Formats: sequence, C-alpha cells, structure tokens
Amino acid sequence: MQFTLLHSDKETSARTGIIQTDHGKIPTPAFMPVGTLGVVKTFSPQELKNLGTDIILGNTYHLYLRPGDKIIKDAGGLHSFSSWKGPILTDSGGFQVFSLARLNKISDGGVEFQSHLDGSSHFFTPEKSMSIQRNLGADIIMAFDECPPGNVDKETAMKAVKRTNKWAESCVKYLKENPPHYDWNQTFFPIIQGNVYPELRKQSIQELCSFSRCGMAIGGLAVGEEKSAMLEMVHLSTEHLPMEQPRYLMGVGKPADLVRTIGMGVDMFDCVIPTRNGRNGHIFTEDGIINIKNGMYKNDFSLMDKKSDSPFGVQFSKAYVRHLFNVNEILGVRITSALNIAFYMKLMKTIRLKIECGEFCKWSKSFLKKWDDE
Amino acid sequence: MQFTLLHSDKETSARTGIIQTDHGKIPTPAFMPVGTLGVVKTFSPQELKNLGTDIILGNTYHLYLRPGDKIIKDAGGLHSFSSWKGPILTDSGGFQVFSLARLNKISDGGVEFQSHLDGSSHFFTPEKSMSIQRNLGADIIMAFDECPPGNVDKETAMKAVKRTNKWAESCVKYLKENPPHYDWNQTFFPIIQGNVYPELRKQSIQELCSFSRCGMAIGGLAVGEEKSAMLEMVHLSTEHLPMEQPRYLMGVGKPADLVRTIGMGVDMFDCVIPTRNGRNGHIFTEDGIINIKNGMYKNDFSLMDKKSDSPFGVQFSKAYVRHLFNVNEILGVRITSALNIAFYMKLMKTIRLKIECGEFCKWSKSFLKKWDDE
Repeated sequence: MQFTLLHSDKETSARTGIIQTDHGKIPTPAFMPVGTLGVVKTFSPQELKNLGTDIILGNTYHLYLRPGDKIIKDAGGLHSFSSWKGPILTDSGGFQVFSLARLNKISDGGVEFQSHLDGSSHFFTPEKSMSIQRNLGADIIMAFDECPPGNVDKETAMKAVKRTNKWAESCVKYLKENPPHYDWNQTFFPIIQGNVYPELRKQSIQELCSFSRCGMAIGGLAVGEEKSAMLEMVHLSTEHLPMEQPRYLMGVGKPADLVRTIGMGVDMFDCVIPTRNGRNGHIFTEDGIINIKNGMYKNDFSLMDKKSDSPFGVQFSKAYVRHLFNVNEILGVRITSALNIAFYMKLMKTIRLKIECGEFCKWSKSFLKKWDDE
Repeated sequence: MQFTLLHSDKETSARTGIIQTDHGKIPTPAFMPVGTLGVVKTFSPQELKNLGTDIILGNTYHLYLRPGDKIIKDAGGLHSFSSWKGPILTDSGGFQVFSLARLNKISDGGVEFQSHLDGSSHFFTPEKSMSIQRNLGADIIMAFDECPPGNVDKETAMKAVKRTNKWAESCVKYLKENPPHYDWNQTFFPIIQGNVYPELRKQSIQELCSFSRCGMAIGGLAVGEEKSAMLEMVHLSTEHLPMEQPRYLMGVGKPADLVRTIGMGVDMFDCVIPTRNGRNGHIFTEDGIINIKNGMYKNDFSLMDKKSDSPFGVQFSKAYVRHLFNVNEILGVRITSALNIAFYMKLMKTIRLKIECGEFCKWSKSFLKKWDDE
C-alpha cells in the first residue's frame, strides 16, 4: 500500500491524496461504508461501486462468529467470498468485544468474552485477531486495541494505552512471522488510544509510530465523550501524527463531523450512519434531512431527491417511499440506503474538489452553518 | 386492448400470441409476478423489466387498505405511483375478502368484511371494486367474484356461480357509466367459477361470455381441490372458452402446472411462488430446486446458477448466499427472488419458442418428467 499526498489546503489542515492498494485506488478523504457481515446492508457490490464507493469495511468480530473466518479463507478471502473486488479494511474486533460481547474479561494476554449471539465463550488475543484478519484477507488490517468508554478516569485510560501499545507490538510480531495467505499485501494500522487526555494521546502516538508503515487510526473517540472533547482530541492527534501517512478516524460520523475533522487533517472514515439511518427512514439530501415515515409525505408526490447521484432519487416519489416503509417493503430501505450512500459519496467528492481548488475553508463554513445541528 | 393469436401448436392446445395494451405488448403465454402492495417484493421496476417481466399484478384489496386507492388516484394511478411503466393487471379483491379478511358476511349485494390488519369494517360490492380499480388504473381489471374454497358442495358452488354472474353484470354496468380516469383503456375480464363441477363450469362460461370483450379468467381453482380436479377443470374450461380471447388461469403456479395448462390452451398466469419461495431460500434452477438454507451449502463455493438470466447467478456463490440468509441480510432474498423471477421468465420464453418451432409437445414431456414432483 502506498499513500500519495496530492493537495494541502492553505487555510486549514485539509488535504487530498491517493491510497494505492493491490485491489485499487482510494482517493482521500475517503468514507468507508460498513459491511459488517460481508455485505453493506441491502447492496450488491456492483451497486455500491456505481454509487461511488471505493473501499468498504468488514467487521472481524462479526465475520469470525458468522460465517467464520475459516470458511472465508476457504473461499479465497473476503473479496472473493463477498464478490466485492475493491479495497477492504477490516477492524480488529477490539471495539466489538468491549461494546457488544457480554461478560468480557480483560487481561494483558487478551480478552475472554461471550458471543452476543449465543453466549459461547471465546478468547481474542492480538495474535488471534491478526490470524483472523490474515484469513479474511483485507487490504488494510487494524491493530487489536483496548477501547474503554468515553470519559473513564485517567488511570483506566492510561492502562488501556499501555495495553494497546503492548498488543500492537504483538500484532506486528505475529504479522512478521505469518505472511498473508493471498497474493496481495495487507497493511497494518496501529490505533491511537488515550481517551480525552492530551498527554495520553501524545504518548500513544509516540509509542505507536514505530509500528506504522503506512497509516494510523484515531480510536477511542465517538464512544460517549463530549463532542467538543472528541474534536479537541482529533485536532491534537492530527497535529502529532505523521504527515505522510493517512489518518483514519474510526466510527465517525455525521456529515458535519466529517467536514470539521477533514479540516483538521483526517483522511479516512467509517460509520454506520448512512445505512442505519436509511433503514430508519432518515434520508440525507442537499436540502437537509427527511424522515420519510412522517405523515406529511403521505400525499407528497414530489421526487425523492432530484440532486442525488443515485438513480432512485428521480425514480420514486416521497409518497411512494413512505408507503413502502409503512408496509415494510424491502424496496423502501433499498431506496433510502442508496440515497444516503450516494449523499456521503458525493459529499466526499465535493470535499476533495473544494480542497483541490482552494475553496475548502469557505465552503466548509457555509456547510457547517447548515449542517451543524443535524 | 387487443389479442393477436400467432401460433397454435398442432399436437396440443398450446398457443402463442401478443396482448397489446396502452402500456405495451405482452407476449403470451405470459407469467405475471405479483406486486401485492404496488411493488414486486424486493425489486425496482427497472430490475423487473431487465429480468424480462412484461406485466405485473397488483392486489385491489391490499392497495385499497394501504395506501388507499384515493392516494394512488392522486398520484395519477398505479403506474405513476409505483414507477412501473409497463402493463398492469389488478385483481378485484374478491379472492382476498374470502381468504384473508375476517368475519366476512356475503349477500347478493356484496361482502362485508373486517380488515386483516386492524379489524376495521368494509363493504365491497361489484361497483366498489370497479370504482377502486378505476382509481388504480390498471390496463386489465378483474370482475368482482365469489370464490368458495375447493370441494364445497354443489349447491354452494352453484350459488357462487349465480352470484358471480350477477355481479359481472353489475361490474359491466358500472364501467359503462363510469369511464376511466386516465387516458388509457381498462379491459374487463370476467371470472369463471364452478368449483370442480363440470356442468357449473360450462354454465359459468356460457353466461359470462357476453360480458367479455378481450379475455376471460379461470378462477376458483388452486384453492384446496385435488390437483387432478384442477387440471380437469382447466381442460374443460379452455375447451369452451372463446379461442380468440386470452385465457388467464388465476393463482397458478408451479413450473409443471404452467407447462401442463399451457398445453391445454392457457395464456396468462400469476402466482406468488417465485417471490415467496425466494424469500424462503427456495430457488428454481434448470438443474432442479435448491434450498439455500441447507447446511450442505456452507462450504459450497460454486456459483448460484451459471445458466440464469439474472446477473446475480454468476456473481455470488452458494456459500455466500447461504451466509446472507443465515444472518438475515436483505441481499440474500434479493438474490434468490431475482433468480426465481429470471427462471420463470426464461421458462415462459422457452415455452413460446418451443410452441413456435413446433417442439412444445416433445419438450413439455421431458420437462414434466423432471419437474412433476417439484
């Protein structure tokens, strides 16, 4: 994997670049739709591609439980299994064993947890996470980290930083000793922790830089802390992270958060918002947010979104899509999911263009004025 | 609407033709996917069209309850509301008020029933059914009929025949006095009843022929009677129905039933089997039926169906689609529904070609040998 910086904004820290992987190029800033179980909910790979998606994220914890990483290995990896031929990033399972699994028991060796599906017991270690991610075969693989909730005390946050750094070392050792199963590279991203404590964030970056070849992630944010603290930590992180490597802000977020943190120098994002909100009837359009379940759309025969890059925007009326939601027809969530992914992809494209032509600062101010509260 | 007979098979009663409607042509024999609520489940109209669908069916009872025929009228009719621009046929609601609604109370005037959704009371008359179908605006609209269950006694069946015929008269009167709301024609199809009693079937045909302009339907079958009785009644009906009008066998059915009754001279069909079975993981392929939920497909990385006209047939493996079903991902039912609709459409196309080149009799024997038990 290679990252080439293309443009740096003069007024902010925003920048554009290209990540080159063995499965294709990713223009940055980039947003990754979440394909938890080897599919971005409702979409075929071709449809996602048509909407402008360059890279998707797969979840190690979920794929380990179902269908199991061994089946995916037998299929020739996640690209082959899911038919998504473009770049893939997999998380490490760290976040999920803390947030989803029950009764997790953490030690320096790893995390013992019970599956959220059937209560069965499992033990994840840095080595185990790497082994699963070797099987899945994503282009970018993530460190196994400890991610405590937002606003834990400093002592707890410090322990998590130390453990995460120690685990990163174990991950790198495992990867050195166990090459990929497939004929493409897998690039390892360490994950910065440190909660809302500036000195811990700096320490985390300092210690993890040596494990990073081409990219680092800002983790442990958007997990319950104040929005202002989140933004402060992103700002501090991007100031200390290597310029020449892409910075990936995990699990973020809303359109305004993307725009704001891109201004701080973030290059990559993933979030379930476009697809999850779509399934709830919550649609992003250039004119603002629509909740299509609202009774006001019962007789509204205007088109869903004339400005959308999804063909569904001009194929269906609001009244029709409201009806589809009302009667639980799958086409409804397909339409709203497509409109939301198209909105996010168009937003990233616009941002890249605005950075390239030197208008990002001005544009982002007007965007944030409109989207700050949404 | 106009029906042109093209080819008549020499060895059987099978025939090909073209139904010309104001929304396009339908080559016959034709199969209509069921779009109960203004959508063929999981599909966009463009996708249905791409799979070879020429006409779809909408359900009057369901659309009357949700979203309401007045909303669809305000949208400019069902074509406009649903964005399906091709021909549409709507049933009359007769079948559903008997099979779905609760506590229905039938009289010569009509049927009082309670909605299966919320128990609210409604009263359907021939005039009401025509009024709703005028609002929906389908190209072909169906008579409001009484459809008793299979194998009722002759007395009950006779009463239903008499009532259905009387109601057909009321329908035709209403249609004469109330022209369409839109600038296309709506063709009325009477529905033959008579259960499994040959003389009642003959009587029904005789009395209903005068109400038919361009097409008649064989109703009251596939409702619980023996398969052999069903086939006997279809055979008797097509022998007595006008040669120059299309014959529509309602609610049928399995591939073998289509092939068998096309050999008796049936031209049109509708059935939920391809979409409903698809949602249950039950897939029709040229090599037979697959139940994709079966554990045997866990590690089967062969393609879903190389011979399918749906692009999904060569995009995904059986193991992947089984996984999608296992984790309740919508893409799973989309794939299986598409494969089943493609199978049915290809089957009808093959049948038309076989009739045209005089090979239908031979071909159908070999088809039935393979598909008789499925």
